[in-house]
Amino acid sequence: MPNTSLPTSAPLTGQGSSRPFKTIGLIGRLGSEKVVDSLQRLISYLVEHDYSVLIEDRTATVLPQHGQPEASRRMLGELCDLVIVIGGDGSLLGAARTLCRSGTLMLGVNRGRLGFLTDISPDELESRVGEVLAGEFEIEQRFLLEAVLYRNGVAVGNGDALNEVVVHPGKAVRMIEFELFIDGQFVYSQRSDGLIIATPTGSTAYALSGGGPIMHPKLDVVTLVPMFPHTLSSRPIVIDAASEIRIHIGETNQTYPHISCDGQTRAVAKPDDVLVIKRKAERVQLVHPIGHNFYDVLRSKLGWSHRLGD
Amino acid sequence: MPNTSLPTSAPLTGQGSSRPFKTIGLIGRLGSEKVVDSLQRLISYLVEHDYSVLIEDRTATVLPQHGQPEASRRMLGELCDLVIVIGGDGSLLGAARTLCRSGTLMLGVNRGRLGFLTDISPDELESRVGEVLAGEFEIEQRFLLEAVLYRNGVAVGNGDALNEVVVHPGKAVRMIEFELFIDGQFVYSQRSDGLIIATPTGSTAYALSGGGPIMHPKLDVVTLVPMFPHTLSSRPIVIDAASEIRIHIGETNQTYPHISCDGQTRAVAKPDDVLVIKRKAERVQLVHPIGHNFYDVLRSKLGWSHRLGD
Amino acid sequence: MPNTSLPTSAPLTGQGSSRPFKTIGLIGRLGSEKVVDSLQRLISYLVEHDYSVLIEDRTATVLPQHGQPEASRRMLGELCDLVIVIGGDGSLLGAARTLCRSGTLMLGVNRGRLGFLTDISPDELESRVGEVLAGEFEIEQRFLLEAVLYRNGVAVGNGDALNEVVVHPGKAVRMIEFELFIDGQFVYSQRSDGLIIATPTGSTAYALSGGGPIMHPKLDVVTLVPMFPHTLSSRPIVIDAASEIRIHIGETNQTYPHISCDGQTRAVAKPDDVLVIKRKAERVQLVHPIGHNFYDVLRSKLGWSHRLGD
Amino acid sequence: MPNTSLPTSAPLTGQGSSRPFKTIGLIGRLGSEKVVDSLQRLISYLVEHDYSVLIEDRTATVLPQHGQPEASRRMLGELCDLVIVIGGDGSLLGAARTLCRSGTLMLGVNRGRLGFLTDISPDELESRVGEVLAGEFEIEQRFLLEAVLYRNGVAVGNGDALNEVVVHPGKAVRMIEFELFIDGQFVYSQRSDGLIIATPTGSTAYALSGGGPIMHPKLDVVTLVPMFPHTLSSRPIVIDAASEIRIHIGETNQTYPHISCDGQTRAVAKPDDVLVIKRKAERVQLVHPIGHNFYDVLRSKLGWSHRLGD
Repeated sequence: MPNTSLPTSAPLTGQGSSRPFKTIGLIGRLGSEKVVDSLQRLISYLVEHDYSVLIEDRTATVLPQHGQPEASRRMLGELCDLVIVIGGDGSLLGAARTLCRSGTLMLGVNRGRLGFLTDISPDELESRVGEVLAGEFEIEQRFLLEAVLYRNGVAVGNGDALNEVVVHPGKAVRMIEFELFIDGQFVYSQRSDGLIIATPTGSTAYALSGGGPIMHPKLDVVTLVPMFPHTLSSRPIVIDAASEIRIHIGETNQTYPHISCDGQTRAVAKPDDVLVIKRKAERVQLVHPIGHNFYDVLRSKLGWSHRLGD
Repeated sequence: MPNTSLPTSAPLTGQGSSRPFKTIGLIGRLGSEKVVDSLQRLISYLVEHDYSVLIEDRTATVLPQHGQPEASRRMLGELCDLVIVIGGDGSLLGAARTLCRSGTLMLGVNRGRLGFLTDISPDELESRVGEVLAGEFEIEQRFLLEAVLYRNGVAVGNGDALNEVVVHPGKAVRMIEFELFIDGQFVYSQRSDGLIIATPTGSTAYALSGGGPIMHPKLDVVTLVPMFPHTLSSRPIVIDAASEIRIHIGETNQTYPHISCDGQTRAVAKPDDVLVIKRKAERVQLVHPIGHNFYDVLRSKLGWSHRLGD
Repeated sequence: MPNTSLPTSAPLTGQGSSRPFKTIGLIGRLGSEKVVDSLQRLISYLVEHDYSVLIEDRTATVLPQHGQPEASRRMLGELCDLVIVIGGDGSLLGAARTLCRSGTLMLGVNRGRLGFLTDISPDELESRVGEVLAGEFEIEQRFLLEAVLYRNGVAVGNGDALNEVVVHPGKAVRMIEFELFIDGQFVYSQRSDGLIIATPTGSTAYALSGGGPIMHPKLDVVTLVPMFPHTLSSRPIVIDAASEIRIHIGETNQTYPHISCDGQTRAVAKPDDVLVIKRKAERVQLVHPIGHNFYDVLRSKLGWSHRLGD
Repeated sequence: MPNTSLPTSAPLTGQGSSRPFKTIGLIGRLGSEKVVDSLQRLISYLVEHDYSVLIEDRTATVLPQHGQPEASRRMLGELCDLVIVIGGDGSLLGAARTLCRSGTLMLGVNRGRLGFLTDISPDELESRVGEVLAGEFEIEQRFLLEAVLYRNGVAVGNGDALNEVVVHPGKAVRMIEFELFIDGQFVYSQRSDGLIIATPTGSTAYALSGGGPIMHPKLDVVTLVPMFPHTLSSRPIVIDAASEIRIHIGETNQTYPHISCDGQTRAVAKPDDVLVIKRKAERVQLVHPIGHNFYDVLRSKLGWSHRLGD
């Protein structure tokens, strides 16, 4: 019977049934033989157990003669009860930005080392996926950020981010000048290499390298991490994820700052532009095997010490 | 008409009345002539405007012939509608730990520079206090932490903290070994100079010097900041304030770690002791003049830049 | 009588003469009226006191009818006994990279706030310059770094830096993979946003924002500061400035890292390129009024506290 | 034939001889069976190869019936050509503070994991020690700091440190106020938990946990690392090791700061005391097997990445 780790998360439909899912979508990271191998094992397993399998069209290009129907990533979201993503955390990030619209459940399988989002390892592929398909899982919701860039009051670009939005100079080693407002209140003007606005999900990614705090994934908060700030007393701030974050690019700014979401440039700002960042209404629905523990993953990924005496 | 900045905070009783308060308590920091001066001005003002004034007994020792009734700090909490604390943030911290039990409203007046908690300056004393007494104020709730030290399952010490609980070696420059559990889940074992467990209120105090993030005061979160950790990949973590934090002092630890709350030692631990930290049920009820803005105080205290073009 | 703050620096020639300098060169930062004003005051002062004045040709474009001979920056180095640079630290950096070749003495005048390199303020312009011209000064030497980029063993780009060499992705928010060797010894391979290699002069500039240490300007050391490193235990390293620093861009690196010197891109690397950084033989010869104190400037620039009781 | 990695280090006497050493001293960390085992193996090896062995008297207590002469640590320094220390870096630190007076060569054998100073592992004990005894080694000099505490101009306490001098509150979580002077120049007044003054040797120990830079062991520099400074723009500073560092404890300081050297309290300061820290004239003479590489140890200890492709 599924648990949900967020108090507000919707209970799953599968209760009372040993097979909560019927149609399973598959997405794989391109360019990795390990991923192809895992995909083929998964297809065999799923077909053998009488599941309908739908393969993302781009993923299908590396699976000749797979014999299953194909569909776009967006259609996968519409048609599948569960989408399994095989690759690294980056692959899941990409899929999540699309699949959050349909609220589709997602399960991540890593191609090698465990990830923060892809927490099933290839060598336990069938057993762990089997548990999930049998209804033994937890659902965890993760929120996304939505960034919209305004010029003279008109939206000129936008993007979604599960990890972080970054405002940075397109050409590095050039400072940006901007003003930050939170919920309409002026916070500071800053000269720096940029600003990272990270979700709890993203707090263990790029923001962590920049000195941001680790934030438990179930928290509804956002952190703002200044990048190489000119003012040495600048520090990361943690605020309510429901806040409206507004960044006013300085009028005399000499660079055209780039706005990137999860590492991909989504817009290029001009002086006097305004970037508005809010939490999206839709949430990513992550599926974990029972017993998934954020701190275990953290300890493993960051090389932290084990229990005394180990 | 009073506003409340916390969505869950109880509305005030003063609505419909121009005088929400009748009995005003006064607490002052000892050892400062400026504070004595502000106290005398406040007494005159309050008496002139027909308020009942109650003076904390220790404060009364620096106010000869003040002519008002005296009471203990705890009685002030029981009898007053509002307690005004004059001093620095430290004075308000001390009073808050007592007054949170009775839920008494508190207003902080600084003796010099503005503080994070004491946000009325002496030169605007009568006008700002006048506004508050006329019902023009906001209420902000701040939560406290409660630390209990257990030895063989029996509580042997405890303390309350509005800013932070710190576990540290009694003699400095000696590492502590401990294990950290959050909500029963093992997080890490650590060798370090100690651990700071800070509320949002405390995030701009000691924890900030230690590299912790600034957390907006209305958030219901706690940060754990390792002090000079032996493992260089250790980082501050932000967790839900509703979590139970459990620190197991290493059995082979060679120091007797001190447990301090808001800077004062409350207990001394032995090897194998367990420290449990939880959010207290009672909250501090801070009163601010209308328009109080956390970011304004932050910018001023940390020397951050003003608006571009200023 | 001039002092030199470096133990090995040669004493100045001006001893026994009250006029150690005859020909004075002038360089000003373009685009600032304050600079034009200071330049005009300086020209008047110098002409009045019978000095030969030589104006940099680009600077001359903002000084119509100045009536003095003009020359290129490089010729200024050859012909002048002293070159005065008016602007910010950036202006002096630029001039220093050219003038170090001829070993010309340089004096920096700031256009507003004091800088680390430009330590005469406009309101004491004539008096401080007068002191220097009368022989009342100290000489301080600063070394530069020389970066050469090699492809298949052939030099394909190079640059000089008084502050720092930075290896960074041309498009930000993309990691670089590289290997670092110091004096032929392998140090680490790193995935990060880049690496800052800073002189003591540059240790109070960009490297400081990145978490590097402040290094006293007379030290013969270099610091290597990783930018947003993927490995959280990465730390700044301080090494002998006489070391050869070799950075091998990863063969599978997906970006074309830029090599910038003092903030300006000098070369773009391809995978498998090798960047070699060494101390230059020539040094910048900075002139300061007697009593110049690095720590005074530091305290003022970083907002550090003054003496207890101030 | 021995190499010396410091340009100024004295060449060794053993040239032309295959046996540069005759009398070998042994010091072991108490309380470890592994150390006793290594000591016994070493004694057998040395006796078998006709070396005179001298055992430190305290170490002898864990070696019943060892059959060799005993002597105090200080006498070991006078009588031995080489002293081998078995234990961790801490054991070598302790021995080095004594043996630097006689300039005795020291070799460190680790009881388990490699250390920065003890770079021979137990499983290669005989072979590596054999190489060194055959003259295959390098000498590396490390300098120490000497701290003297003055009260009203009279020395009231002192200590030597190979790693670091720390000024800290005896009772933690109490700020210290002090003024820092370097070579007589005022640097800053600071309110903090204290100050770490570390050598390059100590830069990979406590100072590193506090955010200090790693400094190559051959550099003649010192770093000053503020501990939890109240002023957020405080940063580590690197200065010439020949500098005189003077710390004036604030007259109104409310704590009695402790002065510790390599982790052991050596003096307790009163308000208005002055602590003077200088480089000692004597140096520790460390012996390493040929090919010892600082960066290899660093990478191993800090978990840094290996070469790309590994």
